[in-house]
Amino acid sequence: MDDIGAALAVAISRGEEARGHTSPNPPVGAAILDRHGELVGQGETQPAGGAHAEIRALREAGERAEGGTAVVTLEPCNHKGRTGPCSQALLDAGIDTVYYCQPDPNPLATGGGAFLRDNGVNAECLDVEVEALIPWLTSVRRNRPSVTLKFAQTLDGFTAALDGSSQWITGEQARRHVHVDRARRDAIIVGTGTAIADNPSLTARDGTRELPTQPRRVVIGGRSLAGHAANLHRLGFEQYRGIPDALWQLWDSGARDVLVEGGAQLASGFLEAGLVDHIQAYLAPALLGQGRGVLSEAVGLSIDDAARFRTRTVTRFGDDVLLELTRKD
Amino acid sequence: MDDIGAALAVAISRGEEARGHTSPNPPVGAAILDRHGELVGQGETQPAGGAHAEIRALREAGERAEGGTAVVTLEPCNHKGRTGPCSQALLDAGIDTVYYCQPDPNPLATGGGAFLRDNGVNAECLDVEVEALIPWLTSVRRNRPSVTLKFAQTLDGFTAALDGSSQWITGEQARRHVHVDRARRDAIIVGTGTAIADNPSLTARDGTRELPTQPRRVVIGGRSLAGHAANLHRLGFEQYRGIPDALWQLWDSGARDVLVEGGAQLASGFLEAGLVDHIQAYLAPALLGQGRGVLSEAVGLSIDDAARFRTRTVTRFGDDVLLELTRKD
Repeated sequence: MDDIGAALAVAISRGEEARGHTSPNPPVGAAILDRHGELVGQGETQPAGGAHAEIRALREAGERAEGGTAVVTLEPCNHKGRTGPCSQALLDAGIDTVYYCQPDPNPLATGGGAFLRDNGVNAECLDVEVEALIPWLTSVRRNRPSVTLKFAQTLDGFTAALDGSSQWITGEQARRHVHVDRARRDAIIVGTGTAIADNPSLTARDGTRELPTQPRRVVIGGRSLAGHAANLHRLGFEQYRGIPDALWQLWDSGARDVLVEGGAQLASGFLEAGLVDHIQAYLAPALLGQGRGVLSEAVGLSIDDAARFRTRTVTRFGDDVLLELTRKD
Repeated sequence: MDDIGAALAVAISRGEEARGHTSPNPPVGAAILDRHGELVGQGETQPAGGAHAEIRALREAGERAEGGTAVVTLEPCNHKGRTGPCSQALLDAGIDTVYYCQPDPNPLATGGGAFLRDNGVNAECLDVEVEALIPWLTSVRRNRPSVTLKFAQTLDGFTAALDGSSQWITGEQARRHVHVDRARRDAIIVGTGTAIADNPSLTARDGTRELPTQPRRVVIGGRSLAGHAANLHRLGFEQYRGIPDALWQLWDSGARDVLVEGGAQLASGFLEAGLVDHIQAYLAPALLGQGRGVLSEAVGLSIDDAARFRTRTVTRFGDDVLLELTRKD
């Protein structure tokens, strides 16, 4: 099983690399071991219309795939789509055993595992959570883009001081991670208030250099941005009147993983509508006492009304801490 | 050096056990290896007037200490105090080498390392931070008790909901740790407002059972508690008019490590006076939007005015996260 563990790590890592490039397809990674357990192929899902991870890995493996083992982060698809089904390709290549981390919940693509088993291939679901697939799996379950609410705050819950200043709450390491993370998303969403007040670029940058993959820039709200938000006008953006409209248009045009970056009113709007699937909270070890909060509205009067999440990951960036939460239901 | 590492772990662990029992002395741990590297003695500081860690460990080792190695979490004391100096005892036992984690900054006790070296013993400071000693070292540096501000909050910074409810923000694991931690402290401090509103017991409990060591119960503020705070009246408490008065009386009567548990006004008072050395923030992955904050006052108008700390530890308790911070200067 050591070979399988190593192949799994390769597949997960390749899938992670694919994030931000594959929607509406999932960012999947795959690795192929030959019959002796040697790694002979690996790959990740290509941008929509391109090859899936398994096909890339099989191509690299060539004839050495025969009698070998495939490790894939998601159940191989069983539909034709724009490419042939991966389950058929694995069968044709003579693969002996397929391990996959998660079943494919997409009703159009599911059934790859059963198809393989019916045709004499060992196919086993490992039931391993794959970070890169969480937003895509959420989107399939919800029939809308997965929504991650992101904010940077002081320990005592302020995203800006009383005078509105917020640069910088967190340190350089955390801010660098924000940009890496933006490049993995399909869209960054802000409210008109934030677009007007902050003149944001909503780009994924490394210093001043733009990263090769950029998310769509989206503004939600009825206020006109004419004469404001020069950076968004320069870079291009989409504007939608309300949250349901935005999510529908984004879903329909292929977005599966969107990040809501503020402000407090938009965050409260998403939360009240039950549309916050995940939270990314960057916490700085600082106290402000008063300032602007994460939300603009009370969730309820009592502690029992609090919106509860489960803690998925806790990551330190120097003195700052990133908490990644997921809704409970 | 493997033997030394193992002995260090024993010494640190014994010192940790001593927390809450030793003030005004530091909670020190010690381990003795014989000349072959075998662990032959260990011990921790006894309550004031009792033996220091080194003496306990030497007694257990007996003649096997000769030519051996002592590992101590703090530089062996060099003064007579209520017990003889530990440096002399180590010398008399024929110890060959002494490793200690931290130098003793107490002007009355320092010099143990130099004394040992002058008398032909190898004595080396390892410069390893020892969690159990942090409050005591802070108190010696500040000439007052070390102050830890403790609170449990929602992710967005609320210690209670709009209706005042706060039971329970965090889960059972975190709440259990709060009680273990209380037993390590010399005193728990609340303001009169909290004492009246919450009728707290301020005891260290395991379920309903009181733990063997209890901190002093302290209330700060001018309001009379007559007719209020029945639990504190039953259990006994001390009341001081203001923060400086309380800290002085606590220091003078031997307290070195105190925990401020609220409310927001008292927390702001300590912070404004520059008296918050450490923060223990228990964070629940929940959002309230509005409610009672950690502090009652703004620290400043701008983000540059924020009170900044450094992050020492990040610990998960189920879904909750404990951040332990320390002031930067």
